[in-house]
Amino acid sequence: MNYPSALPLGQVRFTRGFLAERARLVREVVIPYQWEALNDRVAGAEPSGCVHNFQVAAGEKPGKFYGLFWQDSDLAKWIEAASYRLATHPDAALDAELDRLIATLAKAQGADGYLNTYFQLVEPQNRWANLRDCHELYVAGHMIEAGVAHFQATGKRTLLTVVAKLADLIERTFGLGPGQIPGYCGHEEIELALVKLARATGEIRYARLAAYFVNQRGQEPNYLQAETKRRGDPLPWHMYFDGLATLQAARPVRELTEPVGHAVRQMYLLAAMADLARELGDATLRRACDTLWASLVRRHLYLTGGVGAEPYGEKFTEPFDLPPDRAYAETCAAIGVIFFARRMLEFELRGEYADVMERALYNNVLSGMSLDGTKFFYVNPLELIPAVAKRRYECHLVKTQRVGWFGCACCPPNVARLFASLGEYVASQRPDGLALHLYAEGELRAAIGGADVRLAVRTDYPWTEEVAIEVRPAAPVEFTLSLRIPGWCRGAKLAVNGRAQELAVTHGYAAVRRTWAPGDLVTLTLPMPVERVRADPRVSTVAGRVALQRGPVVYCLEEPDHGANLAGIVLPRAAPLAPRHDPALLGGCVVIEGTGYRVQPGASLYQTTPPATAPQPLRAIPYGLWANRGEGEMTVWIHES
Amino acid sequence: MNYPSALPLGQVRFTRGFLAERARLVREVVIPYQWEALNDRVAGAEPSGCVHNFQVAAGEKPGKFYGLFWQDSDLAKWIEAASYRLATHPDAALDAELDRLIATLAKAQGADGYLNTYFQLVEPQNRWANLRDCHELYVAGHMIEAGVAHFQATGKRTLLTVVAKLADLIERTFGLGPGQIPGYCGHEEIELALVKLARATGEIRYARLAAYFVNQRGQEPNYLQAETKRRGDPLPWHMYFDGLATLQAARPVRELTEPVGHAVRQMYLLAAMADLARELGDATLRRACDTLWASLVRRHLYLTGGVGAEPYGEKFTEPFDLPPDRAYAETCAAIGVIFFARRMLEFELRGEYADVMERALYNNVLSGMSLDGTKFFYVNPLELIPAVAKRRYECHLVKTQRVGWFGCACCPPNVARLFASLGEYVASQRPDGLALHLYAEGELRAAIGGADVRLAVRTDYPWTEEVAIEVRPAAPVEFTLSLRIPGWCRGAKLAVNGRAQELAVTHGYAAVRRTWAPGDLVTLTLPMPVERVRADPRVSTVAGRVALQRGPVVYCLEEPDHGANLAGIVLPRAAPLAPRHDPALLGGCVVIEGTGYRVQPGASLYQTTPPATAPQPLRAIPYGLWANRGEGEMTVWIHES
Repeated sequence: MNYPSALPLGQVRFTRGFLAERARLVREVVIPYQWEALNDRVAGAEPSGCVHNFQVAAGEKPGKFYGLFWQDSDLAKWIEAASYRLATHPDAALDAELDRLIATLAKAQGADGYLNTYFQLVEPQNRWANLRDCHELYVAGHMIEAGVAHFQATGKRTLLTVVAKLADLIERTFGLGPGQIPGYCGHEEIELALVKLARATGEIRYARLAAYFVNQRGQEPNYLQAETKRRGDPLPWHMYFDGLATLQAARPVRELTEPVGHAVRQMYLLAAMADLARELGDATLRRACDTLWASLVRRHLYLTGGVGAEPYGEKFTEPFDLPPDRAYAETCAAIGVIFFARRMLEFELRGEYADVMERALYNNVLSGMSLDGTKFFYVNPLELIPAVAKRRYECHLVKTQRVGWFGCACCPPNVARLFASLGEYVASQRPDGLALHLYAEGELRAAIGGADVRLAVRTDYPWTEEVAIEVRPAAPVEFTLSLRIPGWCRGAKLAVNGRAQELAVTHGYAAVRRTWAPGDLVTLTLPMPVERVRADPRVSTVAGRVALQRGPVVYCLEEPDHGANLAGIVLPRAAPLAPRHDPALLGGCVVIEGTGYRVQPGASLYQTTPPATAPQPLRAIPYGLWANRGEGEMTVWIHES
Repeated sequence: MNYPSALPLGQVRFTRGFLAERARLVREVVIPYQWEALNDRVAGAEPSGCVHNFQVAAGEKPGKFYGLFWQDSDLAKWIEAASYRLATHPDAALDAELDRLIATLAKAQGADGYLNTYFQLVEPQNRWANLRDCHELYVAGHMIEAGVAHFQATGKRTLLTVVAKLADLIERTFGLGPGQIPGYCGHEEIELALVKLARATGEIRYARLAAYFVNQRGQEPNYLQAETKRRGDPLPWHMYFDGLATLQAARPVRELTEPVGHAVRQMYLLAAMADLARELGDATLRRACDTLWASLVRRHLYLTGGVGAEPYGEKFTEPFDLPPDRAYAETCAAIGVIFFARRMLEFELRGEYADVMERALYNNVLSGMSLDGTKFFYVNPLELIPAVAKRRYECHLVKTQRVGWFGCACCPPNVARLFASLGEYVASQRPDGLALHLYAEGELRAAIGGADVRLAVRTDYPWTEEVAIEVRPAAPVEFTLSLRIPGWCRGAKLAVNGRAQELAVTHGYAAVRRTWAPGDLVTLTLPMPVERVRADPRVSTVAGRVALQRGPVVYCLEEPDHGANLAGIVLPRAAPLAPRHDPALLGGCVVIEGTGYRVQPGASLYQTTPPATAPQPLRAIPYGLWANRGEGEMTVWIHES
């Protein structure tokens, strides 16, 4: 394979700045906190039962299974995150803790390789009997991702061996051969996990198993339909409206033209499809990825990089149906967007993939975690009026403030594993050099043409426009440094050792090829004027409104700065808007300031005379930092006149 | 009692025009059609079982009860509507049909006066056991209204005797005395029915029984809470969020400051409260009515006169939470608004009551019925994108086209009885003369100061601005003719026999006192420019938008005139708008025309460059006539720039 590949985690280090601070929070606050939560040691939080369940399954203690049937996956995601942390920040205590935990997992595993505490402890007779609802292969997938991450971080094969044995059992059990189950999981995840396992072990058969799962999905005779009929149970509520399309299982994946159904599942499926198209050189799968990528970004993506506009079933809906107040925009789904975008980027160096990845990261995903790393959003609306959100049924899943944990705790560990592995999203190594996707202060290492090359990045991105990259090869070496010029940026400037360079941008990347000597300095300037963004007029719910964006950061208005009734604020088309760095606000950030006006209530509910107005100073803050100052109104989309 | 009172139905005749045509449709199409439906003779429609149930209860045929436990009320509402029809348009066949039906009802009635086919045939042991959910007193209320209407239309006491016997049983059963049930109905209706019964029979004790039901509501110890506890059943889904407030039973009615809970119930309760405040001279109840009226029109009323912004439970929500696409605005609730407004108007001649009554009638209620009288809306949104409404859960009760009947068929017979009794809403007789509230071509008769007076009204209202009223007393007689000057109207002009009069408007009514001679002609001119209406800025969902109104008629844009994506249409602030009568459109109506522009989709979902626009001819049609040209988008609120 000659595709670009992500720089491994150990070769990227964040040192300072906005992303570094989030990654530090995840390492130092989130991962330890979640370990306590998974061990049911957080007072006042919903118990998790995760570690307990494995200890019971391993025979280490008596007791009963606690939680939902996919409970194991919370622990698996934590192991994955903790492993990423070990990869970047070695820690003997955590290493030992993981070893102990993995020993328990290994003991809990059945002789045949089976590992799922719910089905081992509660319904052993129903193993693989309800692929539609029970997330058995999904849980296995997360376990496999954990095993791969642990191996890559530590070099230890303890958990890798466990998950490979599990994968082998799955390989024997599923398929179109005699005696095999011709099924696939209602919740995709195993597919992308198996590709990781194939890469980690070098065994292509795991990728082929993933391809089986992807290819078999939605084929006739429809396995999940037959399974449902066999059990005789009704369709669950979340499949209302879409039936099997909720699970992307109504049609073969190559026939999909719009993303459908449960948003996280759709994104995980797309991530696996992109992986497999690349891994197996499957052109038809690649075409399906291209079609769905185009549809996703053209018709289904929130400005914040989120997806899933329908709370009822956490789903995609109609094209352009992107209401800001009823957005589901689950944190996990935005992480899924990043997974898909990253894999498309590994296919082909196109800035639009990195643009979407960056949009989801700096906005929807950041919104998912509080500034102090202790609280999380599952749902990330683009507009909130707390009293209304608490009162209307369609908003009943919206939390008006972040919470510490969830009964269905998929999002917090997903945020943790994303930020713990953020280094993997920064750069790709390519045959001819390196490509940088995300700009953050830190250091990158790569072996290029046999030479050890380090890049030292200095920047206050996303707040400032300058990115300085010092190239430090062990010895002079020729390679191409490809620097992403974001889609939101016009008038980017590039200099090498102070000398301005003609910018040659191909598909969103400026390539600089030269023989790099130690100390060569590349200076990239990415102008970040305040931009007014308007949505396609078919996004009916935000017609007549603008959003503010600067660089990759989407902004919002919040009640602490403006009082209530943000819908009564109007931003005139010509009103000047200026960024200002506020070191004291929300951990230090750039706000956007200007003056609009506020429509005043009149004497009656409806009036035929134009309403009175009053000037209204505006201060927009980064959306990713909203809801860190108490409960209040928020809006991304501002009325324009 | 010295209050104004509605002119009885037999003294008002519509001859021609917009309302007359709807009343004719109801008489000639709706009432006969509903009779067929209630007899299960409409092919393809959901069976009703109503007549069947009474025949079974009367022992006239074998069989089982069919339908919901409030099924009887559909028949009662039809009897009421049919009786109104008899009052205005005598019809021997219908009269005989009613006599036969009433004989069956009388036979079905229990010896103690009980009459409710569900509880007689299905759960005789559970009579009055679940007042919270089972609508027993509600059904009785509709039966009583039917009995009163039949008596008033025909002078026959057949059904009146039946319902008085039922009311007597209720009087014995409910109250705070020993052995009585200290309860009240989960769905208000019996209260206003008992006031009608008191007036029809002259027996004030029925009004006192109504007052008991109103006063006992929400008192501690809470009867419905105790009843729920006794049965041990869970709260039904529709009480999610609000608990007993869903039924206006969480607090005593005099403590309510905002309308709450199920909108139809709240409106029926308010109608009864206004009735009783007047009938019993209860000042505290009157104050509660004033408070809730003010809150209703200031914070909870849709521009179309509808109420109930939350589909989940058909309820009121937060003040100013009036989303156009998720409006429930049930037809029955708007009818309830009319009931309440009419009763406030009988209290005190204030134009604001008539304004709201007219708003609800010409807009929300009219929307409830198709142009040909054969199909109905239950839910009346102010904005519709069919594909989205079919797809989003919170819109799943919205029908994108009217339907012939409903499983819960409350609205069609409610529309029928309202239009069949529309004459009662036209005018009030007062000690000193007559007051006209609604303008429609026709004739009114009243005995004033011993003289027989007729008024002949000629107008094309609501399409034209002129109303000519010829006064025809049998002999010259002095009295005050009070003419409503609508709240939407500025610059009204009044002439008597061609001579302009100084307009003396008190609380929205212009009074003309003189000795009227036969042939005296009053000419009222109510200028109807096209008005742009804006909502209070706290109605966040329509901020930045205007609605068009002319006279009492609210307008909307529809897809047949503009293509899809109505949200992409913008109306500049200064764009001229002109009314035009189109005799061929929708049975003849005034449309509003002008030119706006349409925002063009760009190359991407989000854009930082201002979008291209193209001129867009606009043709707004009356909202009450929407959805008569096939399925398509509709919006009342238009973006303004």
